[in-house]
Amino acid sequence: MSTPLNDWEQKAQKGRDILENSIPKQWLLPDSKLPPQTQLNVIDFVKDSGALSEHELAITELSATELVRRMGHQKLTAEEVVVAFLKRAVLGHQLLNFATEFLADEAIARARELDQYVKKTGKLVGPLHGVPVSVKEHVAIKGKTCNTGFVSWVDNIATEDAYVLRLLHRAGAVFHVRTNQPQSLMHLCCSNNITGTTLNPHNRTLTPGGSSGGEGASIGFKGSPLGIGTDIGGSIRCPAAFCGGYGFRPTAMRNPMAGIQVACIGQETIHGVVGPMASVSIEDLELFQKAVLDQEPWEEETSLVPVPWKNVTPSRDVTIAILWDDGIVRPHPPITRALRMAKEKLVRAGIKVVDFEPYDHQRGWKIISALYFPDGGALTRKVLAESGEPARPLTEWALSYSRATPLSHPEAWTLQHERDTYRDEYQAMLKLRKIDFILGPVYPAAAAVMGESQYWNYTAIWNMTDMPAAVFPSGLTVDPILDALTDMDQKYVPRNGIDAREWIKYQSPARYERAPIALQLAGRHFKDEETLATAKLVKEIISDGAK
Amino acid sequence: MSTPLNDWEQKAQKGRDILENSIPKQWLLPDSKLPPQTQLNVIDFVKDSGALSEHELAITELSATELVRRMGHQKLTAEEVVVAFLKRAVLGHQLLNFATEFLADEAIARARELDQYVKKTGKLVGPLHGVPVSVKEHVAIKGKTCNTGFVSWVDNIATEDAYVLRLLHRAGAVFHVRTNQPQSLMHLCCSNNITGTTLNPHNRTLTPGGSSGGEGASIGFKGSPLGIGTDIGGSIRCPAAFCGGYGFRPTAMRNPMAGIQVACIGQETIHGVVGPMASVSIEDLELFQKAVLDQEPWEEETSLVPVPWKNVTPSRDVTIAILWDDGIVRPHPPITRALRMAKEKLVRAGIKVVDFEPYDHQRGWKIISALYFPDGGALTRKVLAESGEPARPLTEWALSYSRATPLSHPEAWTLQHERDTYRDEYQAMLKLRKIDFILGPVYPAAAAVMGESQYWNYTAIWNMTDMPAAVFPSGLTVDPILDALTDMDQKYVPRNGIDAREWIKYQSPARYERAPIALQLAGRHFKDEETLATAKLVKEIISDGAK
Repeated sequence: MSTPLNDWEQKAQKGRDILENSIPKQWLLPDSKLPPQTQLNVIDFVKDSGALSEHELAITELSATELVRRMGHQKLTAEEVVVAFLKRAVLGHQLLNFATEFLADEAIARARELDQYVKKTGKLVGPLHGVPVSVKEHVAIKGKTCNTGFVSWVDNIATEDAYVLRLLHRAGAVFHVRTNQPQSLMHLCCSNNITGTTLNPHNRTLTPGGSSGGEGASIGFKGSPLGIGTDIGGSIRCPAAFCGGYGFRPTAMRNPMAGIQVACIGQETIHGVVGPMASVSIEDLELFQKAVLDQEPWEEETSLVPVPWKNVTPSRDVTIAILWDDGIVRPHPPITRALRMAKEKLVRAGIKVVDFEPYDHQRGWKIISALYFPDGGALTRKVLAESGEPARPLTEWALSYSRATPLSHPEAWTLQHERDTYRDEYQAMLKLRKIDFILGPVYPAAAAVMGESQYWNYTAIWNMTDMPAAVFPSGLTVDPILDALTDMDQKYVPRNGIDAREWIKYQSPARYERAPIALQLAGRHFKDEETLATAKLVKEIISDGAK
Repeated sequence: MSTPLNDWEQKAQKGRDILENSIPKQWLLPDSKLPPQTQLNVIDFVKDSGALSEHELAITELSATELVRRMGHQKLTAEEVVVAFLKRAVLGHQLLNFATEFLADEAIARARELDQYVKKTGKLVGPLHGVPVSVKEHVAIKGKTCNTGFVSWVDNIATEDAYVLRLLHRAGAVFHVRTNQPQSLMHLCCSNNITGTTLNPHNRTLTPGGSSGGEGASIGFKGSPLGIGTDIGGSIRCPAAFCGGYGFRPTAMRNPMAGIQVACIGQETIHGVVGPMASVSIEDLELFQKAVLDQEPWEEETSLVPVPWKNVTPSRDVTIAILWDDGIVRPHPPITRALRMAKEKLVRAGIKVVDFEPYDHQRGWKIISALYFPDGGALTRKVLAESGEPARPLTEWALSYSRATPLSHPEAWTLQHERDTYRDEYQAMLKLRKIDFILGPVYPAAAAVMGESQYWNYTAIWNMTDMPAAVFPSGLTVDPILDALTDMDQKYVPRNGIDAREWIKYQSPARYERAPIALQLAGRHFKDEETLATAKLVKEIISDGAK
């Protein structure tokens, strides 16, 4: 006798049905051909799976920029491109559970339209012509559910496309898959009560990160060359880093937010941003930013600042400061190793590198964490209560981690003033020290073990200071020998409880087997273009001979 | 036997003492030489008063732009300029009570420094070299009290200059007088329990407007060529209009706000702005804006948007829509007469003019009025309670006019989202109708009778939509014959209670004798430069033969 489903479980089932019904069944591998669940790394599996032809595999290894170039030369069609990525995404989903809905029919129809256009005119429709783009679920698509990871919202049908999707569509993008996010969006992890938990393609005991964790898995597995994430505390950058991809948090109020569904729509104590994630290159992050901002979105979404996207070439005449440790939580050995490698290579390449003394990141965290939930999390709890779904552990964590009781308006104003003051001071400090960029960790670990994503401030600090930040793979992965705890490491005495909590997670490198090690480059407020250009330069320099 | 002063009265007396002690006594006219209190208009009095020489009088009639030009040619010294304006300001203060503190010694010393610089280098220090600038009291000056119209803050001594003052100082400005503001800053009038009530130079039974009412009187009386006001609902534009001067509300987050003292510092549901007021020309408003923004204040105050000031020449290829009536409150006959005159002249000059159908300004008001005091006015009441001073009637009005009970955070977020949506819709509507600028009233009356400033939405609507707006004199004044109520007027049936309240105030033109009639030109969000350029063009066209 089966137990009847609760109301919320029935509703959650609806969300699962939407996903299930959307999967293009013809591309599913039978269970028997899938690797055993005990196989941690599934990235290499795609090559041997037979799911994609050699040609299709080759397509999915290309950057968005290169795909557009080849479609421009009519060496590839949009249809074959999207089919290749759809196939890879379907396989990826079987292995990692990263999708909430496939858009195969629409995507293929759209690709055919684009191919027709090229045939007729000899031209591409725009700078993203034919690029398959995966979309985080809460970025609304007209006529489709938009649940933002809440069971109670499974029946919410969007009445129009999010503005950023309209702009990307106009630029030629093809949306082929929608991706998973955690309940409440406020985890650096990716699990909810609807479509469950997404896994990390490099090691399935690790989280892909979050909240754009479905995107992380999607680009990490190369189920899409380009994806759309959102970030209020690290939600683009953590998943890009954990999954071995690229991600960019632009300065707030540059990219359009209209139509992105969140519980606290209209909240502006801390501005969330939407931004690009990419599988292969920083250049693709620039491609996305330029495609969006060249359409002057501030003319329609008037909250945005009217600052056009500039073309910037990387300069070697910059000062990069290395953030070894934020003074609160010591990064794990693999992160420090990657930073050492980066410093050495940058110095060797003639870049001016200095060590960075963090500017009271604890104060930054104190302000931002109080401003995430000025209502003490009441609205989030209300949306959970509407369906009766239980709060996930990391939702409880986020709510307890930040403000547990509502702020009065005057208390919120004081904190907002402190936020602005801290940001002003941070900018003044960088100018005084003549620092152009800060290169540092994305997270204390290379990637968090499932359920353990607890420390946000290596990413949230740049939300707090509203500085653009790009993450990219260092080229290194966690190495059982190189990253073993040294005698010195074993004698390390944590400076505080948080430091102890994070340090103890690194019992052995084996917990993080094969995790890619990413780095994060943050630039000054509004220096988005310079930050991406310099991240490209840094990536190029450190990739030289890296392994 | 005299009654002892209450605590708050003693504190208020401190504020009055600061003012009293700062007045340069040598320039005071004896009471016997002042016009009788029954004399309403005191603007012409200055010429016959003997307080200023012919040369000094001539100096005070010049624009800031012209003053700088003449100082550049060494035809005028900064010292003689500031002395002339100080004399006029002292007389103006005797007649209108607009100052909170004179800065005569500092201003003269600064002017001498500037003159030395010119002598030594042959150059001016900057674009505002030697321009006397009056400063609204709550724009902090280092080492001086900054009370913001609250008795409880009389002992607040500012620890540094407001950022905008630092920028203006660097550009060469000379601050010679600080000016009055109403209790709580939230009146379109100008009275507080410290230095009392400021009067309108054109008619002393009228208010100079507010909250930058001291500035209004200062520039209206030509006690300064240029002044600094602030505006969250009309506080620059009403006083500029009521006093026959010029004022500009820029798009928010362009001019620097750091160091401007308000009760609810950090509040951002509605952004207040700082902006210029001028006695003689729109060109001076541009001069101020360019002097500030050419210094890239966003590099230091990181809340500001990094949008440089553009040089724009007025274009005749624009569409101007006339806002005859906002659908809520019918403007008084003089305003309508000025708009008719403006329309005729603009049409004759070949400018495309259309009639404007207001876009649900009631909805705009509903949103903005709820967002002025998200705390239900609690903080304002708290600051009043700290000294025990009684709330002024218009403080009570402002608090009752807007939100009387606190918003929850989610309610505030919803309203913020509605605010952004309304602004987006307004922008889209203007584009659809191909309207570049809206020319309309500043207020239902030419100027409000003292205590009667109750309707804000001819100005607040542009705070709500965050559109730049310039006010300037139409060249007309209220005329007992031309503006008498017609039979039609007398039969007017108000559409609602507010309309009735405002209409009944216009019992006869005599209540508004000699009040200047101003107009307001609003441009699209962030089109600040175009708005000032077009206001210049409109002013030029309508001044042609106006009387």
